[in-house]
Amino acid sequence: MSNQKVTIEFQPQQKVTRVPAGTSLFNAANWIGLPIDSTCGGLGTCGKCKVRVLSGGSGITAADRKVFSEAELAAGWRLSCRAAAYDDVTCEVPRLLGNPKAALMGFGRHVILDANVHKIALQLEAPSLQDQRSDIARAAAALQKAGFEISVGLPVLRQLPGVLRAAKWHVTAVVVGQELIAVEPGDTSDTLYGLAFDIGTTTVVGTLLNLRSGAAVAVRSNLNGQAIYGADVIARISYAMLHEDGREQLREKILLTLNGLIDQLLAEAGVSANHVYEAVIVGNTTMLHLLLGFDPEAIGVMPFIPVIDELMNVSALEVGLGIHPQGRLCLLPHLGAYVGADLVGGLLATGLARGEGVRLLVDVGTNGEIILGSAARTVATAAPAGPAFEGAQIRDGMRASDGAIEAVEITPETVRLGVIGDVAPVGLCGSGLLDAVAQLRLANLLDFSGKLLNDEAAAELATPEVARRLVTLEGGLRAFVLAWAAESGHGRDIVLTQRDIRELQFAKAAIASGIDVVMRELGVTADDLVEILMAGSFGSYINPQSARIIGLVPPVPVERIKAVGNSAGEGAKIALLSFREREVARTLPRFVEYHELSGRADFNDSFIAVLQFPDLAELGISQVVRES
Amino acid sequence: MSNQKVTIEFQPQQKVTRVPAGTSLFNAANWIGLPIDSTCGGLGTCGKCKVRVLSGGSGITAADRKVFSEAELAAGWRLSCRAAAYDDVTCEVPRLLGNPKAALMGFGRHVILDANVHKIALQLEAPSLQDQRSDIARAAAALQKAGFEISVGLPVLRQLPGVLRAAKWHVTAVVVGQELIAVEPGDTSDTLYGLAFDIGTTTVVGTLLNLRSGAAVAVRSNLNGQAIYGADVIARISYAMLHEDGREQLREKILLTLNGLIDQLLAEAGVSANHVYEAVIVGNTTMLHLLLGFDPEAIGVMPFIPVIDELMNVSALEVGLGIHPQGRLCLLPHLGAYVGADLVGGLLATGLARGEGVRLLVDVGTNGEIILGSAARTVATAAPAGPAFEGAQIRDGMRASDGAIEAVEITPETVRLGVIGDVAPVGLCGSGLLDAVAQLRLANLLDFSGKLLNDEAAAELATPEVARRLVTLEGGLRAFVLAWAAESGHGRDIVLTQRDIRELQFAKAAIASGIDVVMRELGVTADDLVEILMAGSFGSYINPQSARIIGLVPPVPVERIKAVGNSAGEGAKIALLSFREREVARTLPRFVEYHELSGRADFNDSFIAVLQFPDLAELGISQVVRES
Repeated sequence: MSNQKVTIEFQPQQKVTRVPAGTSLFNAANWIGLPIDSTCGGLGTCGKCKVRVLSGGSGITAADRKVFSEAELAAGWRLSCRAAAYDDVTCEVPRLLGNPKAALMGFGRHVILDANVHKIALQLEAPSLQDQRSDIARAAAALQKAGFEISVGLPVLRQLPGVLRAAKWHVTAVVVGQELIAVEPGDTSDTLYGLAFDIGTTTVVGTLLNLRSGAAVAVRSNLNGQAIYGADVIARISYAMLHEDGREQLREKILLTLNGLIDQLLAEAGVSANHVYEAVIVGNTTMLHLLLGFDPEAIGVMPFIPVIDELMNVSALEVGLGIHPQGRLCLLPHLGAYVGADLVGGLLATGLARGEGVRLLVDVGTNGEIILGSAARTVATAAPAGPAFEGAQIRDGMRASDGAIEAVEITPETVRLGVIGDVAPVGLCGSGLLDAVAQLRLANLLDFSGKLLNDEAAAELATPEVARRLVTLEGGLRAFVLAWAAESGHGRDIVLTQRDIRELQFAKAAIASGIDVVMRELGVTADDLVEILMAGSFGSYINPQSARIIGLVPPVPVERIKAVGNSAGEGAKIALLSFREREVARTLPRFVEYHELSGRADFNDSFIAVLQFPDLAELGISQVVRES
Repeated sequence: MSNQKVTIEFQPQQKVTRVPAGTSLFNAANWIGLPIDSTCGGLGTCGKCKVRVLSGGSGITAADRKVFSEAELAAGWRLSCRAAAYDDVTCEVPRLLGNPKAALMGFGRHVILDANVHKIALQLEAPSLQDQRSDIARAAAALQKAGFEISVGLPVLRQLPGVLRAAKWHVTAVVVGQELIAVEPGDTSDTLYGLAFDIGTTTVVGTLLNLRSGAAVAVRSNLNGQAIYGADVIARISYAMLHEDGREQLREKILLTLNGLIDQLLAEAGVSANHVYEAVIVGNTTMLHLLLGFDPEAIGVMPFIPVIDELMNVSALEVGLGIHPQGRLCLLPHLGAYVGADLVGGLLATGLARGEGVRLLVDVGTNGEIILGSAARTVATAAPAGPAFEGAQIRDGMRASDGAIEAVEITPETVRLGVIGDVAPVGLCGSGLLDAVAQLRLANLLDFSGKLLNDEAAAELATPEVARRLVTLEGGLRAFVLAWAAESGHGRDIVLTQRDIRELQFAKAAIASGIDVVMRELGVTADDLVEILMAGSFGSYINPQSARIIGLVPPVPVERIKAVGNSAGEGAKIALLSFREREVARTLPRFVEYHELSGRADFNDSFIAVLQFPDLAELGISQVVRES
């Protein structure tokens, strides 16, 4: 497929989109959410996705020949899922006969529901001497009538004659994509489930969905069982490299985690594993490599190379996932070694790459993932933030669990802490760290370069109550006491040190300069940003104002900064429920430009520039002035 | 694909063929053996199979867009492997740049050698921060340049990064069809083997071929290990039905047989299993069902339904065949429950369905398989001959092994016997049975109705030496003594009884009436038959004159009756060495009309008509008259 783009116009809706040359008219419509009828999943077999090409060329395909008369072909009628556009095309889309089933999903996305799994109840005619078609030819012919052209593997063929005859030729075919994965006796078409997984380095979230109704019937999350081998992707890659069977151990751990979640989900919903036919999986590039047993080593070292980054369809049996043994897994594609399928899920959930205004999607973590753009152009990058946002390398840092300070407010009279769980504080998690630093800036205790004031200056600029919390620890290390020993859960002061602040500065500078690079790449300024979308669990807890104050994100009005929650998992659900969206996901890596920051001179320049904190006045924020 | 046929004319060769509408121009050329350049296996990726469409339509495909300029497309240039013909087409084929490598194979077939397995040595560029393509994308891009578009499975991806880096990016890709099944370090492109198997109910023949040179490097045969569970397909099917795990036992036995042969072949040729990437397998429908673990029950009972009859590509690992673990098996298609892939192999080896004159292919066995036709039209049927030709149900019958009388000549003075092995006779195999009956007819001892003469008539019509061999056994059963007790290997007379003759009559009548039905179906008489091809081991040993005399085959001049040996195995080799021929095999079932004899009134009528023996005078054969 070339990089050339063509313009597709749909009538009478007058919707226009630009897509890579060779894109099908059907997928071009899906890209902008325009519903064209289809029941086969865009495979050219159901004959429903008819459009009439009014201008621009689109050759006649074999699929067209099966559906249209010569006169219709001459009039421009084509199956849009087979019609590849190589130049600008204007086409007419017939009015839908029914209302396509749709749902609001992700971050305000209107998604047309059409799963990739189909169940088709069949009443076959029994064979006779006059009709000696093979069992599979008989089933395939009935499925073709229903709009499905199938392939089939040995396990189904091994069971087929027995099932057909025991069920007196009344069976239900289960078709995933174009593979017939099961033939069940009787009419089981109402029993149709799928799974969406988001494999995070720390946490794995699984959702069981009814593929008929689109409803989530159970949701569970659990810690990634690989965590015992290291907290972040680099630690996991190292473990795989340095231990014999390390890769296999990691594979087994994540598989155990997934299968454990499946057991819980199925038990909760009262659903049999044999009725779960497909799973869509997102996660960062390393997590998906480890699940599939791929060597992750080259991801971990320059120049950061994955084994594969395309969308993959693999067999559940081959991977070991405990769904229907002939069930299928779909792993969304990656944009790069450090902008993985989780972010592609995020793009589905937010529609960022297909929207009109320029938006910025940021997932803050050990690696900050950054995507900026709109339907016109979208660029992505990854910024090596290090573990500060996860509470690591921070003196009193901790993960976001019970006892973690997640929010901080410094008033002239006191310091107010938001603590996770109904317990006394024991440490500081990422969002609390961010708040604490931002509040120190607001309270005038931290200068723009990131230096805590000396006692003299503090006494002048802050109330005594606040100023006395500025202390000097062993070795002359300056620190701010967030909670005194008496208030803390472990009887020791909880402090934020000068060194912690430096860690945070480096972490936020990595993200901020990554954002800076992609903004310059796209030629946009903060004023152009319609929204800043904060993804991931960190994004959900972060105080947008604090993010602005420390300069983690560009200076936009605070109401434009929005948390989008687990957009990765939402994207997995969308791809599970909508083959149209899944096809969009497949092509997203061709659309989104990935920029590697490592070794870029402009990244280093930018990094130095954004190490310091923004001028609060420029942000329109007034510092808290000591009441005299 | 419709049943409509279209005419394709190739210029400047002025060759014409009629093919089902929707056939690609490339496959139409292959059908008539016209070489069009191609290296990718007709998958639309190498861009070499260019033709210029002079008249008749053929739409522009996505593959065309990649290869041709707008001007070339407008001038009618198309990739012939993607160009489906839906109306009559005349096209121009460019002169081949080189001479296509070809060989005489099968029964005088000129076969263009082009295996489905390709090895492509690659020197990849190492990745860099400027070129962060994934490992598989890097390999795929290089393969695309070489004309291959690939898919890939988990096992290759699991090894890929290690192999690429250990081999310093100098590797050899192994592509079967369009699947990348292995990446080997260094340049191994000279080491490329495949296997052809003919799985007979009794005997399995395996050939190891060098896919580069086309040479057979080792051939072995062995008894089918399933034989302990029954001699013929019905016995095997019964065993599968009546024994728990019977199907699995049968599967294991044939797998053991195949893997045993592979061990022998590899040892003989000094080739590693890891260098054998593909196997083509033919056999009757039941044998291939049992190999794949399919339930054969419905083949064995009316209305005789196979699980699948199409060409199948399956994984060696899934089947358990001991070649490269990612190697592929191709099982040729069946024409019906009792005209299997072995006969499709026979069609490849003889070119019967693509020739000009009408030919008859007969494989005599428990089931007689009959194919009649030419490029204009070809019909097939199966005739239930029963086991007489295998020596079963015959008083002194035996298989064709040491001590079996395989040829008989009755002279006025004596009876001359051809015996297998350098031993005294112990029984009568099929070809001997046929000869004995034919000779009795020639010697005037057997009337046209199949009745042995009484002593009086015999004394009148035969010499005393011959007449005295006509004896009456216990119960008044008439018989002819082929060997006296003193001459035999077990000290008992070897006789041919009246009852044996009846068995033979029923068996030959089944075959003859099957032939009669297809000849009437096609509207041809014996005079129209250019050749009668006798396939299978029985066909190799049969005396053509005897076959004429008993009326097993239509009355053609004896020189038109030819043994074609193991045409099934030859067909397997052809399909292994030539993807073009394999594609022909794939479409043969659509071209060949299968006629079911069971329950056909005309079969029963014909059967009764051909039970008796032909008039020798009408065959132009004079009976041996007793010298007075």
